[in-house]
Amino acid sequence: MVSGIFNVSTSSSRELINITELVSAELAMNTISSGLLYLFNPHTTAGLTINEGADPDVRTDIIKGLSHIVPDTLNYKHMEGNSPSHLMALLTGSSLTLQIENSRLVLGTWQKIFFCEYDGPRVRTVNWKIIAD
Amino acid sequence: MVSGIFNVSTSSSRELINITELVSAELAMNTISSGLLYLFNPHTTAGLTINEGADPDVRTDIIKGLSHIVPDTLNYKHMEGNSPSHLMALLTGSSLTLQIENSRLVLGTWQKIFFCEYDGPRVRTVNWKIIAD
Amino acid sequence: MVSGIFNVSTSSSRELINITELVSAELAMNTISSGLLYLFNPHTTAGLTINEGADPDVRTDIIKGLSHIVPDTLNYKHMEGNSPSHLMALLTGSSLTLQIENSRLVLGTWQKIFFCEYDGPRVRTVNWKIIAD
Repeated sequence: MVSGIFNVSTSSSRELINITELVSAELAMNTISSGLLYLFNPHTTAGLTINEGADPDVRTDIIKGLSHIVPDTLNYKHMEGNSPSHLMALLTGSSLTLQIENSRLVLGTWQKIFFCEYDGPRVRTVNWKIIAD
Repeated sequence: MVSGIFNVSTSSSRELINITELVSAELAMNTISSGLLYLFNPHTTAGLTINEGADPDVRTDIIKGLSHIVPDTLNYKHMEGNSPSHLMALLTGSSLTLQIENSRLVLGTWQKIFFCEYDGPRVRTVNWKIIAD
Repeated sequence: MVSGIFNVSTSSSRELINITELVSAELAMNTISSGLLYLFNPHTTAGLTINEGADPDVRTDIIKGLSHIVPDTLNYKHMEGNSPSHLMALLTGSSLTLQIENSRLVLGTWQKIFFCEYDGPRVRTVNWKIIAD
């Protein structure tokens, strides 16, 4: 298995960033024709997801929806004040697994891979590992 | 690794469909005694999950709950009008990994595998790939 | 691939339990220097997640938040009365995949692995399987 890490710089407190090209670039550096690609977010106020990439309004609607679903104030005890961000991390999930066929990621027509920033802006990292066939 | 695709026809706008038999049928066509089975939903308004399969009321309660949690209207910008469906896709997740032991899926007593339709009815597809031991 | 099962005893109806040490102990019994560790929760009213482990207030805030997000009453039909717990299971997810490097789990500075009890107290089980390099 080959593995690596890349950085993602986020620019606002909450946003979805399309990292599909970053992920594909890591994959292109390794000659894996078939297998699985594992992606891991090592942060507790961020996540990884797959969703629509064509219309940028989808990702802003998702942030708007999550900010509505998760209450900003709720008698939270965590002193850092970012409990809503930790909740969004749980709702999103911290890792993804993707299929590799013919040296390319298998994604649906409208799907892109997103890094979900819920407590930025920050420089974040994403770990990856490939299980070759 | 062996891989494949199967179809799931959904019949309403939002529903959970038990696909455990479909998944088991794909597995039965391959002689894998031990390994992992990866399932992937290539759609942006659908998901995959594992939950109770015994009482059909659980899956209708889940749809009822999700429809309550995710607001139908929220000044969404995405013109297609299905931003709530994209949010449900994020909350659910787009892939599953299952354990194979003795040529069978490892599931808890009450667990079944569900395709989650959030913007149907449509004919959907599910991709799968097996990592054999 | 090596695999196994361990128990988690929960002590309240809803709580997050840090199982990182339990998971690491299973890993330590096997000499795997590089690979992936798959964890599976075979229960329909529980889940597995990764989140902050340093401040115990984070996990109680998460339970508080989930209990607010998922309505307790909503004309649910499931007679057992635990539909909110099934919803929390969907929102959380039932499995995790972790990276193993140098015989250790790859986790971020503040990350720990949590078993999420949403309908306890009970004695629960967690299945695991390792894909070695």
